[in-house]
Amino acid sequence: MIIVMRSGASAGQVAHVVSRVEGMGYKVHLSQGEERTIIGVVGDDRPIDRSQFEALDGVEKTVPILRPFKLASRDFKAQDTVVSLDGVKVGGEAIVVMAGPCAVESRSQLLETAMAVKEAGATVLRGGAFKPRTSPYSFQGLGEPGLEILAEARALTGLPVVTEVMSPEQVPLVARFADVLQIGARNMQNYALLHAAGESGHPVLLKRGMMSTIEELLMSAEYILSHGNQRIMLCERGIRTFEKYTRNTTDINAIPVIKQMSHLPVVLDPSHGTGKWEYVAAVARAGVAAGCDGLLIEVHPRPDEAMSDGAQSLKPERFAALVAEVRKVAEAVGRH
Amino acid sequence: MIIVMRSGASAGQVAHVVSRVEGMGYKVHLSQGEERTIIGVVGDDRPIDRSQFEALDGVEKTVPILRPFKLASRDFKAQDTVVSLDGVKVGGEAIVVMAGPCAVESRSQLLETAMAVKEAGATVLRGGAFKPRTSPYSFQGLGEPGLEILAEARALTGLPVVTEVMSPEQVPLVARFADVLQIGARNMQNYALLHAAGESGHPVLLKRGMMSTIEELLMSAEYILSHGNQRIMLCERGIRTFEKYTRNTTDINAIPVIKQMSHLPVVLDPSHGTGKWEYVAAVARAGVAAGCDGLLIEVHPRPDEAMSDGAQSLKPERFAALVAEVRKVAEAVGRH
Amino acid sequence: MIIVMRSGASAGQVAHVVSRVEGMGYKVHLSQGEERTIIGVVGDDRPIDRSQFEALDGVEKTVPILRPFKLASRDFKAQDTVVSLDGVKVGGEAIVVMAGPCAVESRSQLLETAMAVKEAGATVLRGGAFKPRTSPYSFQGLGEPGLEILAEARALTGLPVVTEVMSPEQVPLVARFADVLQIGARNMQNYALLHAAGESGHPVLLKRGMMSTIEELLMSAEYILSHGNQRIMLCERGIRTFEKYTRNTTDINAIPVIKQMSHLPVVLDPSHGTGKWEYVAAVARAGVAAGCDGLLIEVHPRPDEAMSDGAQSLKPERFAALVAEVRKVAEAVGRH
Amino acid sequence: MIIVMRSGASAGQVAHVVSRVEGMGYKVHLSQGEERTIIGVVGDDRPIDRSQFEALDGVEKTVPILRPFKLASRDFKAQDTVVSLDGVKVGGEAIVVMAGPCAVESRSQLLETAMAVKEAGATVLRGGAFKPRTSPYSFQGLGEPGLEILAEARALTGLPVVTEVMSPEQVPLVARFADVLQIGARNMQNYALLHAAGESGHPVLLKRGMMSTIEELLMSAEYILSHGNQRIMLCERGIRTFEKYTRNTTDINAIPVIKQMSHLPVVLDPSHGTGKWEYVAAVARAGVAAGCDGLLIEVHPRPDEAMSDGAQSLKPERFAALVAEVRKVAEAVGRH
Repeated sequence: MIIVMRSGASAGQVAHVVSRVEGMGYKVHLSQGEERTIIGVVGDDRPIDRSQFEALDGVEKTVPILRPFKLASRDFKAQDTVVSLDGVKVGGEAIVVMAGPCAVESRSQLLETAMAVKEAGATVLRGGAFKPRTSPYSFQGLGEPGLEILAEARALTGLPVVTEVMSPEQVPLVARFADVLQIGARNMQNYALLHAAGESGHPVLLKRGMMSTIEELLMSAEYILSHGNQRIMLCERGIRTFEKYTRNTTDINAIPVIKQMSHLPVVLDPSHGTGKWEYVAAVARAGVAAGCDGLLIEVHPRPDEAMSDGAQSLKPERFAALVAEVRKVAEAVGRH
Repeated sequence: MIIVMRSGASAGQVAHVVSRVEGMGYKVHLSQGEERTIIGVVGDDRPIDRSQFEALDGVEKTVPILRPFKLASRDFKAQDTVVSLDGVKVGGEAIVVMAGPCAVESRSQLLETAMAVKEAGATVLRGGAFKPRTSPYSFQGLGEPGLEILAEARALTGLPVVTEVMSPEQVPLVARFADVLQIGARNMQNYALLHAAGESGHPVLLKRGMMSTIEELLMSAEYILSHGNQRIMLCERGIRTFEKYTRNTTDINAIPVIKQMSHLPVVLDPSHGTGKWEYVAAVARAGVAAGCDGLLIEVHPRPDEAMSDGAQSLKPERFAALVAEVRKVAEAVGRH
Repeated sequence: MIIVMRSGASAGQVAHVVSRVEGMGYKVHLSQGEERTIIGVVGDDRPIDRSQFEALDGVEKTVPILRPFKLASRDFKAQDTVVSLDGVKVGGEAIVVMAGPCAVESRSQLLETAMAVKEAGATVLRGGAFKPRTSPYSFQGLGEPGLEILAEARALTGLPVVTEVMSPEQVPLVARFADVLQIGARNMQNYALLHAAGESGHPVLLKRGMMSTIEELLMSAEYILSHGNQRIMLCERGIRTFEKYTRNTTDINAIPVIKQMSHLPVVLDPSHGTGKWEYVAAVARAGVAAGCDGLLIEVHPRPDEAMSDGAQSLKPERFAALVAEVRKVAEAVGRH
Repeated sequence: MIIVMRSGASAGQVAHVVSRVEGMGYKVHLSQGEERTIIGVVGDDRPIDRSQFEALDGVEKTVPILRPFKLASRDFKAQDTVVSLDGVKVGGEAIVVMAGPCAVESRSQLLETAMAVKEAGATVLRGGAFKPRTSPYSFQGLGEPGLEILAEARALTGLPVVTEVMSPEQVPLVARFADVLQIGARNMQNYALLHAAGESGHPVLLKRGMMSTIEELLMSAEYILSHGNQRIMLCERGIRTFEKYTRNTTDINAIPVIKQMSHLPVVLDPSHGTGKWEYVAAVARAGVAAGCDGLLIEVHPRPDEAMSDGAQSLKPERFAALVAEVRKVAEAVGRH
């Protein structure tokens, strides 16, 4: 951390800041500039609350130097983490395609979709049993019966299953039925849930909050990692901006940025990233070209009957076309 | 809801949409424009997922007409809701000032602050025992011992206490010690927590998510209201924008907007809204001038020793000056 | 500026950066941390493009220490700048109310409005002759005849006139008719226009771009100041965010921030800041409570016939009520 | 347009709105819902200012139905527009790569870069002679001598040249030297400049404002089109969001959205879209995979000596590698 003093800060104010830093066990590096004095804190100062120093007289601002995450960082672990889901490897050479409906609506809907996405080339099945909805009047998911249907589809198709978990006390239940615990965008900073997912040791698909920075996403992963659970896949699913023609803005930059900063695999969700099925294939191709390790795509046999997210769900035949397109792009960038 | 057909949509596509709407029990109002056909859905269509219709062939977009919230709306309840906290009324003529430290750090720190803010004119005490922190390496709050200290401060000063609750299973515990359950910005769409808070019947201070629209805030209130709990105070605490000189951007517009649309009282948190103590008083005055019902302000006897949010915490004497300033503005707008 | 080296940067890379900095005539302050080496640049490094250094091998990032503006800063000029408009002082003790229609539509409309706002207490008249419109099919203003009408209103009422100028070659024309050159939000970074306004020596009302930071606003003022023209009023008019219930989000924080950082006066435009007349009075009161030096308010005798911005225009009687409310708040904060 | 009346609007208020609409020569389509009355305006109502109606008593809001652009729309012109630059076709099957330095700094720098990018596969040369800079203290470009150097490079390499024009009076000068007039992000809504560029008939590269919606970009194109100039290329160059690890957020969604809505070609600028050279290749590949028609890339022989944008400039050898990668992706999506 760098502490920048105000222009005109007194020698006493500088000395007081220095003694505070030293009193915490850090060394100080003092730099007298022409307009500002700067105090460098030497050592791993991540545990210090920078805000304290901003409250001291004569301090203009503080600037962090170290990134706040450790375990999630490439500095800590240089080689790529590969998460294995019953043999399906996320983070290796192959692009993993996870597909299925937004919500499990019925046994027949899910089984039909599961078989269709498998045939089209998906290797993981998605589907929500617990649904976070903006409105209390919207369909909230089937709950535990939905989980049982997912388990049946898993048995039928052999596809590992990813499904959302919404509260800490649901973790054991969901972990019993599913291969991957999905933590949704709205819960990215639900710390009680992150702790529970970390303790479970179960693979986690952690979605970026729609207005969370990449750094905050990595800090949420750090919560899970700090419990010894390294089986984490990060998911870019679009962020909230001022643009109105799409539901969210897919942050394509996030893919190379995360790959550079972290060893964890990155999955792109172009369905939420765009919010309209017409744009899903283009953005899925873009994600693979940019270097993502997997795709998460909403598929519904009859989108116009979907109880949620119909506008962004692909019909199975369109999904099959998307997989074929994505395959070509994957090969063009040396993946498959 | 209005369903806008694409230019060039066929008669068959229009007929199909109409039959789908009618099949759901709604009447249809058809309008043939020069460039677009528009299908109006007559009736309370809030429970329908609009996304379904956007997946139908020939549909360009759908437009909601009704606001999605009901119980939170002034249409539903015209007169202001007043939430009574052990005699302190939030939403009445008087501006309620809630103050205290970001986090309960020790018995002496809290009791000292509690007495100081009471003397300066605060009528509710704030302080966090459970703290949501971006980093797993930061101070996470004292937990239950923190709640006990709050209860002691309450007994000592007579001030009702507001403190954060972070997960559904903490609700009974926190409700036993505190007068108001605070739901933090990161948890505004933690639906399991909203349900639990709703069922508790306890007063709730619901903070707007830093990434949430006013409509989403009202929808989260709707979750609590749908359990029959009307004792809700909404809190504007700044939103995330591109501006970097302040921690958040206080959405001052939200105050008149919420007062117009909803009957629930509105509290402003200028400490988080700005992130710097130098700006807190100016924005507190602005909030009262704009019509808020209360203020939530961070006060710490020694901000430079605060374990969190030191930069935005006021010293007790500065807080006392703020209360005096706010009082004059309150009188200028006919409050006290 | 601070240059942060990557973890693992070689001694040669550090030496190369140091020699580059020294080659530019600056001194270097080297700090070897545990995880990172930091190179401090001593001296006024504002003219250097930091981006160069980020292109050097081994550099992780650069961090500016000095604020990039100089002439606009309180460090440069401690006392408040007061801009005098034919006797009306902006930046002094009195709050200046500038009011009038969005656009000059006709002689009768403008003269009627001018007399009404004067009677209600406005001391400056606003009105657009050149209108920047998103659509080429919208009313673009009356042009020079509009300026003549403004001059007539000025003669009739004695109110100084503020009106927008949209391109460098219009500056002499507009300066001949108006007391203040308004530079609109969309042109805040139209540097050719800023240069022309600077050279004119005429008072300038510089509106913040709807997605510009406060720092960028001050840098645009710096362009004008660098021509020796200090007669600048900064105008906060709302920024673009994700919130949809209002046209823009009034950045109320910007008022105390600018007053702290700069000596220039600040005017608030609650009409654009909210986009709806119902919210204008509340936000106008808030602005005065927060410390602004003036208000810019759209008034139209018949908003439902306005050729632009009808939804955010006040009728004269509502404007008169607003002025009365604002007066009380001004007195509550020691202004008048 | 749809006009939504407030719940409780009186019959008289409805009748008044209806008569106003009819008085403007439009037909009305009235729909009496259970909670709201809706008034549909039949006909091309793009020229009406919707804001007028929002000012009428009893009106809650208005909703546009028609998109505000016409000439830029696929409804108006179904087939793709191809802009020919001295034989180089933008918008056809081939992906056009435009490359060169941010700014022309010297004759030798530009000629060296021009030959390098040509050899690597670029077919258009970029380079700025007039530079819009946030700070008046930064390098502002060489001006006319820079244009002369560009013309020399053009003669030497045969590459058409794109360069920025910053004000209406510069248009004839720049058009004399350059093949394409670039309108920069900060000037996207500089209407005087759009008019001048439209009148010139010269090819235009119109960059999206960092704060502008896709709709606003298309409306700015509409200004140019309304002068009969169809030789427009739209450029996505990243938008401003809350994310801090990159300079801007590349809106990859914008590519399929614009291709669907408009016939104009789309160019992606991954240099500004990311702001860091390490991420440029990944995002360039993504753009091509998503369907863009061209790329605009900053290349500098010695980025660490660049007078601007060094951090996002590629060295020639890295640029050559990028072109090879992009070529493979282009073939994977059926382009070349």
